[in-house]
Amino acid sequence: MAAHATRSHPMTRIGFIGLGIMGSPMASHLAKAGHEVLGHTLNTDAYRRLEADGGRGVGSIAEAVKDAEVVITMLPNHPQVEQVVLGEDGVFAHAPQGALLIDFSTIRPESSIAIAEAGAAAGFRVLDAPVSGGQVGAEQATLSIMVGGTEYDFASATSIFEAVGKTFVHVGAHGAGQVVKAANQLVVGGTYALVAEAIVLMEALGVDAGKGLDALAGGLAGSRILEVKRKTMVAREFTPGFRIDLHHKDMGIIADAARQGDVALPTAALVASLIAAGRAQGHGSLDHSALLKVIENLNGRGEK
Amino acid sequence: MAAHATRSHPMTRIGFIGLGIMGSPMASHLAKAGHEVLGHTLNTDAYRRLEADGGRGVGSIAEAVKDAEVVITMLPNHPQVEQVVLGEDGVFAHAPQGALLIDFSTIRPESSIAIAEAGAAAGFRVLDAPVSGGQVGAEQATLSIMVGGTEYDFASATSIFEAVGKTFVHVGAHGAGQVVKAANQLVVGGTYALVAEAIVLMEALGVDAGKGLDALAGGLAGSRILEVKRKTMVAREFTPGFRIDLHHKDMGIIADAARQGDVALPTAALVASLIAAGRAQGHGSLDHSALLKVIENLNGRGEK
Amino acid sequence: MAAHATRSHPMTRIGFIGLGIMGSPMASHLAKAGHEVLGHTLNTDAYRRLEADGGRGVGSIAEAVKDAEVVITMLPNHPQVEQVVLGEDGVFAHAPQGALLIDFSTIRPESSIAIAEAGAAAGFRVLDAPVSGGQVGAEQATLSIMVGGTEYDFASATSIFEAVGKTFVHVGAHGAGQVVKAANQLVVGGTYALVAEAIVLMEALGVDAGKGLDALAGGLAGSRILEVKRKTMVAREFTPGFRIDLHHKDMGIIADAARQGDVALPTAALVASLIAAGRAQGHGSLDHSALLKVIENLNGRGEK
Amino acid sequence: MAAHATRSHPMTRIGFIGLGIMGSPMASHLAKAGHEVLGHTLNTDAYRRLEADGGRGVGSIAEAVKDAEVVITMLPNHPQVEQVVLGEDGVFAHAPQGALLIDFSTIRPESSIAIAEAGAAAGFRVLDAPVSGGQVGAEQATLSIMVGGTEYDFASATSIFEAVGKTFVHVGAHGAGQVVKAANQLVVGGTYALVAEAIVLMEALGVDAGKGLDALAGGLAGSRILEVKRKTMVAREFTPGFRIDLHHKDMGIIADAARQGDVALPTAALVASLIAAGRAQGHGSLDHSALLKVIENLNGRGEK
Repeated sequence: MAAHATRSHPMTRIGFIGLGIMGSPMASHLAKAGHEVLGHTLNTDAYRRLEADGGRGVGSIAEAVKDAEVVITMLPNHPQVEQVVLGEDGVFAHAPQGALLIDFSTIRPESSIAIAEAGAAAGFRVLDAPVSGGQVGAEQATLSIMVGGTEYDFASATSIFEAVGKTFVHVGAHGAGQVVKAANQLVVGGTYALVAEAIVLMEALGVDAGKGLDALAGGLAGSRILEVKRKTMVAREFTPGFRIDLHHKDMGIIADAARQGDVALPTAALVASLIAAGRAQGHGSLDHSALLKVIENLNGRGEK
Repeated sequence: MAAHATRSHPMTRIGFIGLGIMGSPMASHLAKAGHEVLGHTLNTDAYRRLEADGGRGVGSIAEAVKDAEVVITMLPNHPQVEQVVLGEDGVFAHAPQGALLIDFSTIRPESSIAIAEAGAAAGFRVLDAPVSGGQVGAEQATLSIMVGGTEYDFASATSIFEAVGKTFVHVGAHGAGQVVKAANQLVVGGTYALVAEAIVLMEALGVDAGKGLDALAGGLAGSRILEVKRKTMVAREFTPGFRIDLHHKDMGIIADAARQGDVALPTAALVASLIAAGRAQGHGSLDHSALLKVIENLNGRGEK
Repeated sequence: MAAHATRSHPMTRIGFIGLGIMGSPMASHLAKAGHEVLGHTLNTDAYRRLEADGGRGVGSIAEAVKDAEVVITMLPNHPQVEQVVLGEDGVFAHAPQGALLIDFSTIRPESSIAIAEAGAAAGFRVLDAPVSGGQVGAEQATLSIMVGGTEYDFASATSIFEAVGKTFVHVGAHGAGQVVKAANQLVVGGTYALVAEAIVLMEALGVDAGKGLDALAGGLAGSRILEVKRKTMVAREFTPGFRIDLHHKDMGIIADAARQGDVALPTAALVASLIAAGRAQGHGSLDHSALLKVIENLNGRGEK
Repeated sequence: MAAHATRSHPMTRIGFIGLGIMGSPMASHLAKAGHEVLGHTLNTDAYRRLEADGGRGVGSIAEAVKDAEVVITMLPNHPQVEQVVLGEDGVFAHAPQGALLIDFSTIRPESSIAIAEAGAAAGFRVLDAPVSGGQVGAEQATLSIMVGGTEYDFASATSIFEAVGKTFVHVGAHGAGQVVKAANQLVVGGTYALVAEAIVLMEALGVDAGKGLDALAGGLAGSRILEVKRKTMVAREFTPGFRIDLHHKDMGIIADAARQGDVALPTAALVASLIAAGRAQGHGSLDHSALLKVIENLNGRGEK
């Protein structure tokens, strides 16, 4: 791990593909840190912010990456990443040989491995570098970054990671970043389910859940989620944050990874079905802490 | 919550029943804090420590409680508490009217409520005050205490709680302490299951689980359990700590409480079955983090 | 197993305690079969039917059992059975030495064993003989009976079993009948959950669930439940039959038995939580096939 | 549904791709029924049986389908089906316009729909027709066939279905056959889990599981699985039959279908993880009834 270092690194030419809710602030942080950032995205409204922060929006992937030392992708899921990176008019078709691709997207490990292999064959270096921390973390440049790839490439990306994250850990070879991100989402989703069931249990037995969670937060049951979310959960405030729809996507990645690794994860499987229920019940655009609504609904509680 | 205050409280006469792994250090802390502690327990070896710390071991419940202002019980489960408190030669038969019973045992809420009601009918005040923190917390006087009963009785017990715990929260009426403790054990047991599945997933896919958990610990997946247990879990060191057998007992309390409150807790139910499996596999005397062995065994992994 | 035999058995003097939805038709069948039946129950309206069929209602347990060769109990759960059989004015206090107690109630195995032991000490023979088949089976005398106790006592009760059931199996020693009944309810409850999920899956993907279940019923997925319940489930007709509240009670017996036998039953635990949800959602008095409503509700489907 | 009709249909020219454990006997039945069958498969040993029964093995897909009225595929999973049907040298590249493709493979519904759409665009008629009944059903021509597609195409395939199956049901539009097959595998896999837990519960409490299952088989818990598998399960004979590896594949199809239909299926998710555990424990080539080994292992029971 590393904290923000004093700035002394040389400017890097970066092509940044995908200026969404996460990518837009990340690209801005990189531009503000002094890097030369050429951004490309589907919704060109995002160019205004990037340009205000010193970067530039361009009309094609080709234009964004053609002189890049580092290419960054921040996209919804593996089909988008595969198309942008491997497609006919994609990154590998237009970036200069030797460029480093940092994929910040959360996708399934086998896709990251396939992209890294395709990159190696085509003369590119690749890191999978999914992030945790959500929109708030992206805006505040406090993301946690889990990085898979070679030690050398990881080290060479330090100035990039410092500009957008608070901690970054090299966890293993290509795909390892995605595996750790999957493990992260497993624990996060499951913790919401547990806290939700704890709240429903306490309230059903007439106990003030707010006081109860205060007691839990101080002991072995304590967690970052109890710290930052217990008040909003008890108040039933579910403004995202990180949407149930996205966590549902991530539980699919966990299922794929489990199948690939031939492992049985019963708790993860049950939690995935509860998150899927949240989406089926129409709460997909609420914060993932709204898993509480699923447990309440299961118990005939809460607003109908 | 409250931190240790400067000592200025008057000495209290305490009858302490149950000097086991938890009760023994707790009684000693009370004696060292200046209270007059008469202890009674089945294993009279425990009297040596109590007497070294300024208390005294006595031969019967009657003798321990006959002049007590406060009676404390720290016993394995509700049948023992019911017998000690309500039995023919028990606490209510021998303690002076108006005495305060503090039951630190973890038992089902309905038993705590029944004891409080029996106490009220017989002229006694009662608090249920289950603790979290285990043997280490008892030895270091850093327990978290979840207290159910009246505000007045809670306030009157401050000097007791300060002597044995770091935090103590009044969470509601009689039984509420047990409900919150049940919620606590639900979250703790479940978190072990999630971390265990995260470890197995990462290792199955060739990722160093130690590095992976380091990354998780710093973000939204972070928890007290990851903080204090991730290294021993990855090293497969399962010295208790808090035994699986005891957590199995506590999951039974959660099931009873859920049935009483008419609530469905699917994740808790699944976690309870994994903990039961740990016991069935012969790991009952290992630390509850040995839930990892259950998930490994489910996956044909780990030592046979 | 045995089918109805031609009647040639001698008349038996029977004391029958508990003339509810199940007990009332069973007592009537016994009376019509030529046995002398003295019934006692809380709701004395039930005496009319018994008397119309040749039996007699009496004012106390003592009166019902004082000359009985066989005492039958058909009661809601173990507290009632224990009170009626072991209580101060109960069966063992008033029945003649050597009488055979047949308990048709569904209760937890350890209670049946305790009653058998108390019976042996007091000079009574005891069989646990829980039934499957519900109200329809009781009315039509087509119950399945799972019997625990000695081979000799089982054989001596043949004429009783023939009068109320279609099949009866001696499955083992005292308590074994209850264990098998618990296993039965585990499979029945679980099958409803599976069929409910199959229906929701098919309907969500636009497939006619009626046709789909027709296809399933003919193959390896076929079951008695698909045979008799698939049309009402697809039509959302949930008139009991066997109520969710009772199945919830039975899942509690399974949980007790699993805890007693130190076994982990993850699928049963999850199914129990779904049945508990049915009750929490207010469907306790619907047929247990209404587990479909729980799965639909989890998916934001069905009427609100 | 339909039983075997008297044979009066005209001979059909069939190209049959995939002569594995299932496909080989099916192709033979079609040849023996008088159809002209040209088979193609990877393992050319299978040609001997087909030729002995009146068909012919050929060296390419092109050769098998070039004059076919009906093309049949019976392949392991969707990638194989997609390659064989849609590939450069595949069925749609070489079969005559208007030919009917019957895909007996079990694949995910969306693949079946995509193939049907590709077929329509290229001038082919398509039915998805997954089967239930396993190797035994294929050898004995007693398969259950769940068919998706148009009513007209279903009717035109009657003579084919009659030659290989006992029942065949038209369950809906393209993909509906696969959806019903997924529902079938959900119920079958889940029933094995339930029966396994019932056996372990009974044995843990000292009850003869064989007698217990006899009692269950006769009542509401009765099922085709209890009928045909209870003796082998109690005897721990797990010769396939249908392998755990294949059921694991099918649970993946269920998960895909649930994700596509946006439905949460908690019981199916848990059962899928138990089946995955069977595979992870090295039982992938045993019969799916070996789910009993997973439940036993979870409980520290059974041979190690």
